[in-house]
Amino acid sequence: MSSPKRIIGIDPGLLHTGWAVIDCAGSQRNYIASGVILPPTKIPFAERLAFIFNNVSDLCNEYKPDECGIEVIFVNKNAKTTLLLGQARASAMTAIAVNGIPVFEYEPNKVKKTLTSAGHADKEQIYRMLKILLPKANPKTADESDAIAIALTHANTSRF
Amino acid sequence: MSSPKRIIGIDPGLLHTGWAVIDCAGSQRNYIASGVILPPTKIPFAERLAFIFNNVSDLCNEYKPDECGIEVIFVNKNAKTTLLLGQARASAMTAIAVNGIPVFEYEPNKVKKTLTSAGHADKEQIYRMLKILLPKANPKTADESDAIAIALTHANTSRF
Repeated sequence: MSSPKRIIGIDPGLLHTGWAVIDCAGSQRNYIASGVILPPTKIPFAERLAFIFNNVSDLCNEYKPDECGIEVIFVNKNAKTTLLLGQARASAMTAIAVNGIPVFEYEPNKVKKTLTSAGHADKEQIYRMLKILLPKANPKTADESDAIAIALTHANTSRF
Repeated sequence: MSSPKRIIGIDPGLLHTGWAVIDCAGSQRNYIASGVILPPTKIPFAERLAFIFNNVSDLCNEYKPDECGIEVIFVNKNAKTTLLLGQARASAMTAIAVNGIPVFEYEPNKVKKTLTSAGHADKEQIYRMLKILLPKANPKTADESDAIAIALTHANTSRF
């Protein structure tokens, strides 16, 4: 039997960065914790990035995850918004990698498909599946729910 | 007379991140050091970001700059390249801000105009002006030269 692993899932954003920690062993999945990082909006941009970095780094110290799952970012219609998101994502990824934790990137459709067998599942479908897979999870926002979904995707893809 | 300040200028990039440290007091400018951070290209993306972060953080510890100048990033025709650059830039900015150093952002044309009075000066003009302002500087690459130019722009704009 493969050894148990602790996974952190990150759903990055400049306003809200969702995070979730789950434990995996074989086909077992256990919810540990999840939440949202909310940088103050009235501080300079660089300080918002540092806020995300410091909070993700604190999560690494507190929960000691073995691996991280995060969504791939694509350039969408609003390239300016994508660029802001990309920079927030970079701060979170940097914190994970600086703490020596390997980062695995997943396309958003892969996350949806892994959990619901549909590449275009809506948030409600994702939420219902999360509650079946991790009954103890009780995400209060879409960012938290997405972070749990990404952690589960990494767990299911990696076949620990 | 205003107090002397040490400035770090950063020209970010995923392949090459230029950096430069200068001291300023009144109208005096002194070159301290400059170089280029070259993350290994064959390591995962997150580790390249961590490499930039760790190297910029080391520069902060070694030179203890008071303030940082960095170029604003705009979405250009190649949005994908811009996104990669943005993420490298975010790692450098995060390292500066995590070390408690204020970051000031300048538009590329502002950098050129501050140094040469022309918003569209070419690299050769910038280089010649750098050598007049900081005779001890001897940048070997455009990234290093641009980082010195950004540090000088912050010094001249802030009127220390």
